Amino acid sequence: MSSVRIQVINPNTSLAMTETIGAAARAVAAPGTEILAVCPRAGVPSIEGHFDEAIAAVGVLEQIRAGREQGVDGHVIACFGDPGLLAARELAQGPVIGIAEAAMHMATMVATRFSIVTTLPRTLIIARHLLHQYGFHQHCAALHAIDLPVLALEDGSGLAQEKVRERCIRALKEDGSGAIVLGCGGMATLAQELTRELRVPVIDGVSAAVKMVESLVALGLATSKHGDLAFPEKKALSGQFQSLNPF
Amino acid sequence: MSSVRIQVINPNTSLAMTETIGAAARAVAAPGTEILAVCPRAGVPSIEGHFDEAIAAVGVLEQIRAGREQGVDGHVIACFGDPGLLAARELAQGPVIGIAEAAMHMATMVATRFSIVTTLPRTLIIARHLLHQYGFHQHCAALHAIDLPVLALEDGSGLAQEKVRERCIRALKEDGSGAIVLGCGGMATLAQELTRELRVPVIDGVSAAVKMVESLVALGLATSKHGDLAFPEKKALSGQFQSLNPF
Amino acid sequence: MSSVRIQVINPNTSLAMTETIGAAARAVAAPGTEILAVCPRAGVPSIEGHFDEAIAAVGVLEQIRAGREQGVDGHVIACFGDPGLLAARELAQGPVIGIAEAAMHMATMVATRFSIVTTLPRTLIIARHLLHQYGFHQHCAALHAIDLPVLALEDGSGLAQEKVRERCIRALKEDGSGAIVLGCGGMATLAQELTRELRVPVIDGVSAAVKMVESLVALGLATSKHGDLAFPEKKALSGQFQSLNPF
Amino acid sequence: MSSVRIQVINPNTSLAMTETIGAAARAVAAPGTEILAVCPRAGVPSIEGHFDEAIAAVGVLEQIRAGREQGVDGHVIACFGDPGLLAARELAQGPVIGIAEAAMHMATMVATRFSIVTTLPRTLIIARHLLHQYGFHQHCAALHAIDLPVLALEDGSGLAQEKVRERCIRALKEDGSGAIVLGCGGMATLAQELTRELRVPVIDGVSAAVKMVESLVALGLATSKHGDLAFPEKKALSGQFQSLNPF
Amino acid sequence: MSSVRIQVINPNTSLAMTETIGAAARAVAAPGTEILAVCPRAGVPSIEGHFDEAIAAVGVLEQIRAGREQGVDGHVIACFGDPGLLAARELAQGPVIGIAEAAMHMATMVATRFSIVTTLPRTLIIARHLLHQYGFHQHCAALHAIDLPVLALEDGSGLAQEKVRERCIRALKEDGSGAIVLGCGGMATLAQELTRELRVPVIDGVSAAVKMVESLVALGLATSKHGDLAFPEKKALSGQFQSLNPF
Amino acid sequence: MSSVRIQVINPNTSLAMTETIGAAARAVAAPGTEILAVCPRAGVPSIEGHFDEAIAAVGVLEQIRAGREQGVDGHVIACFGDPGLLAARELAQGPVIGIAEAAMHMATMVATRFSIVTTLPRTLIIARHLLHQYGFHQHCAALHAIDLPVLALEDGSGLAQEKVRERCIRALKEDGSGAIVLGCGGMATLAQELTRELRVPVIDGVSAAVKMVESLVALGLATSKHGDLAFPEKKALSGQFQSLNPF
Repeated sequence: MSSVRIQVINPNTSLAMTETIGAAARAVAAPGTEILAVCPRAGVPSIEGHFDEAIAAVGVLEQIRAGREQGVDGHVIACFGDPGLLAARELAQGPVIGIAEAAMHMATMVATRFSIVTTLPRTLIIARHLLHQYGFHQHCAALHAIDLPVLALEDGSGLAQEKVRERCIRALKEDGSGAIVLGCGGMATLAQELTRELRVPVIDGVSAAVKMVESLVALGLATSKHGDLAFPEKKALSGQFQSLNPF
Repeated sequence: MSSVRIQVINPNTSLAMTETIGAAARAVAAPGTEILAVCPRAGVPSIEGHFDEAIAAVGVLEQIRAGREQGVDGHVIACFGDPGLLAARELAQGPVIGIAEAAMHMATMVATRFSIVTTLPRTLIIARHLLHQYGFHQHCAALHAIDLPVLALEDGSGLAQEKVRERCIRALKEDGSGAIVLGCGGMATLAQELTRELRVPVIDGVSAAVKMVESLVALGLATSKHGDLAFPEKKALSGQFQSLNPF
Repeated sequence: MSSVRIQVINPNTSLAMTETIGAAARAVAAPGTEILAVCPRAGVPSIEGHFDEAIAAVGVLEQIRAGREQGVDGHVIACFGDPGLLAARELAQGPVIGIAEAAMHMATMVATRFSIVTTLPRTLIIARHLLHQYGFHQHCAALHAIDLPVLALEDGSGLAQEKVRERCIRALKEDGSGAIVLGCGGMATLAQELTRELRVPVIDGVSAAVKMVESLVALGLATSKHGDLAFPEKKALSGQFQSLNPF
Repeated sequence: MSSVRIQVINPNTSLAMTETIGAAARAVAAPGTEILAVCPRAGVPSIEGHFDEAIAAVGVLEQIRAGREQGVDGHVIACFGDPGLLAARELAQGPVIGIAEAAMHMATMVATRFSIVTTLPRTLIIARHLLHQYGFHQHCAALHAIDLPVLALEDGSGLAQEKVRERCIRALKEDGSGAIVLGCGGMATLAQELTRELRVPVIDGVSAAVKMVESLVALGLATSKHGDLAFPEKKALSGQFQSLNPF
Repeated sequence: MSSVRIQVINPNTSLAMTETIGAAARAVAAPGTEILAVCPRAGVPSIEGHFDEAIAAVGVLEQIRAGREQGVDGHVIACFGDPGLLAARELAQGPVIGIAEAAMHMATMVATRFSIVTTLPRTLIIARHLLHQYGFHQHCAALHAIDLPVLALEDGSGLAQEKVRERCIRALKEDGSGAIVLGCGGMATLAQELTRELRVPVIDGVSAAVKMVESLVALGLATSKHGDLAFPEKKALSGQFQSLNPF
Repeated sequence: MSSVRIQVINPNTSLAMTETIGAAARAVAAPGTEILAVCPRAGVPSIEGHFDEAIAAVGVLEQIRAGREQGVDGHVIACFGDPGLLAARELAQGPVIGIAEAAMHMATMVATRFSIVTTLPRTLIIARHLLHQYGFHQHCAALHAIDLPVLALEDGSGLAQEKVRERCIRALKEDGSGAIVLGCGGMATLAQELTRELRVPVIDGVSAAVKMVESLVALGLATSKHGDLAFPEKKALSGQFQSLNPF
């Protein structure tokens, strides 16, 4: 297999989280896969709502465009809300996978129902909407929030990580689900350890998405350019968006 | 009733369409209502896909913020994809209504099922997703595209308008629906005439949304700040997004 | 704007509740709007189940017919089960709005999910069915009953009102919803005060429906007479129903 | 088995159709079953819309009450819209089955998907709503209307019957369904002949409902009086509804 | 009515349970109905998961084939997961009814919502999937497991029976449902007693399915052989499946 | 990456098709992956209905058990109906992926909506049920059958292949979908060529499932043994099923 280059986009501007995510991606990448972990030059330091997502989506597009210019083979959007996913698919040539999407899909293949554990309660609605949109509403047994902000995962105290662990244990006891989906790119490093400890699949979307992109690339499957996801219509973007002008 | 100020945001940068939309809004505004028709300073000249929408959403937020600073009572997002709707609701104090949303809601109140007539086929998926998200999947009998770009509605030839009219007639004959929802802010001026000619409710979202905002304001109902739609978390936005920094 | 006349029909025969409802309607009506609050001459003193609703529906139709003869511009059905709604739409020329419908629609525009607080537990199933029919099943976080009959709201003790208030507070704490829908026409007067106290949208259907009818009338939108909601087929009604004979 | 008495209520006032329905019921009744075919003393001569249904529902309740006083063991509501079904269940002691319900349920047990053939196009929406409410939305492949009024089935010309037959044949060819549900009580006599000729299950709701009531009675299952369908709350009905006063 | 022969297939190999089920079937069979209670010659002693179901399905088909050769009029699959139902319908000439199906359908006719009480927690997912497939997802208020294996119902101690009873009582108190569906063929004998004691419909699928088959046979309705459920394509089965070779 | 062994189970007994499937699997397998293509020793030569599926499911379980004994890392069920999927997941230690499942999941990641092209019309219902069960009902634009039996794909004439090609072209023109899912394991070899020719993703489930298993194995994710998919309860299987006795 010739070398594959996957761009992993952290949609927020936190460099620490970009590194966490990049490391998680590299840890599972196939031998021939190169991971390019990037984040937008400007935007929000963390994503905890629709407002943050809307801003992050532009940064995602900017990176998708850059990645396409560099000829990467596929893209990962590494924020659990999958911000800008369909817009990115229009812009991209190769496949684009969101980490919520990847984790949810995989969860349905190893368990009949799964639970989600995420950060702030206000982000639950984003996960709910994605479940509905992706078709997994019936496959999710329950959603949980540890009630800490995203960046608490990067504060080095381990508190957030411990809260995630506790919530996973409680979810498995109460929800009747067989797997856990971790609802934040910043939780990527927890998945393997929790899978081992709790002896159920605890799924991180970053690694799941990397494998999904590798799979699609290996199968020769790229984003369909027939119909809805065709390249954006050519039109002159103005102001700060000029750098996004269609090719 | 004291004076009410409603900001009508055309999410694309077409001044002609902003005027069309503003005029449609003023035509139905109550005596005490002042309409502020605006569009982003930068962005896309028309919105015909998810990529366009993602860019437009930032312009919408910029305007929402400006409107909030000016103390407007409510906001309308005047593009049929309702770009940035939930993000705008987080940022806004008053109610924010999308024109797709407003038109769809009203359609379910005057007919058991409705048809949608829009511009390019590639925008149909956006309407489909909104139907699903708003809960009106069962209330929409069919979706139609006239296969002309949005700006054809502003070219003065009347061709797009005639195509809309023809498609409405065909929809009423074939779909088993009782009302038509016009799927583009640029079609705002057609609704009244078509309602009269076709003798069924032909619903324009711009005017529908204006009345919806007026209603919410009159009832003292603003966007809930309890939970999911609370003001965005305070965090430093960088680069071109600094102007959007939370209050 | 020329004067608009809206008929607000309390489907039960309680004059006290008809007054409560009429007052709530007038409190939000636009300057040019005249409210005609009526109730059936015969029927049920309160509506707390499907049996009560079936009887009330005939009274609603009788009043719709009378309203149409008086040339009113639109109608409100002021009972939270929206009894006789589609039948009334067939009979009416102008728009007809149910208060459950109006409140639910508005709730989805100011919050991502809402809770319902109603009277007797046995009426919950009616609300559930309406949520399903209107498409808002996913938008309702939970339903609550204070377990007091409808007329307890008119007994002057304030007990029912206090129970409603308590249940709203509990719902906001437990349901993860951002707005409350009051599930009874007799709760109309509570909405504004609770909205202020609880600092979330607490929505009364009577006032919501009045604004919705005003909006539709202002937009020139009446009930579609194309297809399903066309005027009833002409046929001779017999016995006590003769007064309802189609025009 | 001791004798069972089933009240079959034709909700319209057509005596001819009451006889048709009564005959269809008797044709399938078990040896020990007595059929009491009745219709309201006053109401609509045929049911072709929501208005007609709302009026018919009161007549249904009147008959349910009479049937309960006579000690019948169960009730059938013999109109394809199942008018007043839940209200009737509140009022009744024994089981109450609608013919749309019975036919739809049985159809799902002999085929993976079924088609519906009914009378006027405007009644299709009623069937659609019932499919949705009963949970059979995915099991119905298509709905068809012969575009003749209900009473054309009683005019002796055989035209309506021939149109039903043609539509059934076309439905089997085009819909990918394996069974037909006849969408009108007046089509009851056609089912057996069409089943034989077309060699697929063609299901009449009247006979289906009679067997369903017999089954429930044999199993000792009556309408649940725990919760939602408990007897109506005791309250004084006024005017023409006094005869319906709760026991 | 000429004599009707119904084959009641216990899909597991427990002779004790086959007798329990046969007795329950005979207890409700009409005078002219003969019950043939059978079980596969080989397979699983009890069914508590998808693996058990897959094995049992082959035994069901073997019995269906035998029943068809004996000219029975219809078949019941007496395990709450309805194993092999659609396969059996392909193979059978007459109607085939599963006990989960029969119980769920009947429950929706006597209550607005029902609860399910079954054996092991791991079987809940099977019931969930059936609810979804049959369309009754909205009609089921809650699912409960007594956490005892199926065969505990046959151990003579009465413990499982008491746990079922307790769980029914709790379900009625907490779920807001009006009826109980017993989720195991081995609970067949409990239904009548619990119906009497708890004063709500407690529904056993075995007896419900027998009445359903009797009804379909009386109506002349057999499994549709048009389309999806046509007899299996003729092809040579090999090995231990040779005895199932299509006719 | 250490070597990975994936068992690809053709659930029918056709050796030719087993080879086709094995070749398709090997064509996309990663360098370190070994493919073990197997089929049951006994069963059906092709799978074209629920009856065939029920028989095939036992053969699948037999092979899963053998594969587990051989210590394979994961399993693919290579028939588009995913026969025995959940039963296989109970029995297996590693991940088990069905080809319908894999293809459908991947299709939703490269297009907003997809079309399915399969063999006999009677198998469409199986695909419909899977769409519903997996949550992709809204993502499938249409289903098509070429009306040729499965084994026509192995007759060497190329007729079936040409019909598939034609139907794909027509689907892309008419359905408004952006990708094609090939609905039969025997079509595996067509995907790459059609993807190139039609310039849209044409997805074969065999190769998709192989990549999915590789991904899950690489991520350390196996079938959850917590809850619903735990190993089958230990119980003595009898007769021809003894070889399946739980470990």
